[in-house]
Amino acid sequence: MQSAEAKFNRNSLLLALRRYSSAVRDMEHTILLPSLLRDVPTDEVWDCEAREESSKDLYESYLMFKTIRTMVESGLVPLDDHKAKSNTTLSKNMEPLLDADPEALFHFHLRGLFSVMSNLTKKTQSLTDKYMDIIGVAK
Amino acid sequence: MQSAEAKFNRNSLLLALRRYSSAVRDMEHTILLPSLLRDVPTDEVWDCEAREESSKDLYESYLMFKTIRTMVESGLVPLDDHKAKSNTTLSKNMEPLLDADPEALFHFHLRGLFSVMSNLTKKTQSLTDKYMDIIGVAK
Repeated sequence: MQSAEAKFNRNSLLLALRRYSSAVRDMEHTILLPSLLRDVPTDEVWDCEAREESSKDLYESYLMFKTIRTMVESGLVPLDDHKAKSNTTLSKNMEPLLDADPEALFHFHLRGLFSVMSNLTKKTQSLTDKYMDIIGVAK
Repeated sequence: MQSAEAKFNRNSLLLALRRYSSAVRDMEHTILLPSLLRDVPTDEVWDCEAREESSKDLYESYLMFKTIRTMVESGLVPLDDHKAKSNTTLSKNMEPLLDADPEALFHFHLRGLFSVMSNLTKKTQSLTDKYMDIIGVAK
């Protein structure tokens, strides 16, 4: 697997998943007292870019990043819909896509997954940096 | 990689990608004269389920399955937009999703990719069966 991976360029989905996994591992090693993240709003870190997320504190984000990492590492597709509300909205938006041809759908989801993984990696790194700020350690 | 894969269940994305790859390999080994698929409408095989696709013949589908397989095996995310028309439609539908929280987006694209790979695997198998019918070989 290592040799095959070596030839992948920066746009590889597999590499994006591994980069995320590595960012979460780094976050876990750095954040020894996750409770310090409680009540720190995410807005300070991510400039309100995700509206729903602004109600979360950084501690919830910390837990979310760990949950997603477990799924990324197991490679399993979730069957239980614990994010039911958001997924209903997403599924409604999905309806017009069902008429699209499968090649376009494949590209759409491949890019989408790549993009969301890159975004989550950046957010995980920002969270780790924010923790360093909180405990007063310079990067 | 083999040992890690052994514990994955049927809902693994990695397994879905490999199943697709294997179905295309089987198609290539079976279809020795792809030109026999020319002018055979896809409707006969897939019951008009994808409107855009109904203009394709099975030979075009054969080529499409091979193209997607190359991408699946390389793991690369396409940067060039050769499916520009369909992707513009998909991107428009994508806009409301950008407000969703990243965990929901992650689930959405992971499931989407899993679902489109399962669908493509079935279609590849149907195409292989159809070829067997055309050349008069019983399954």
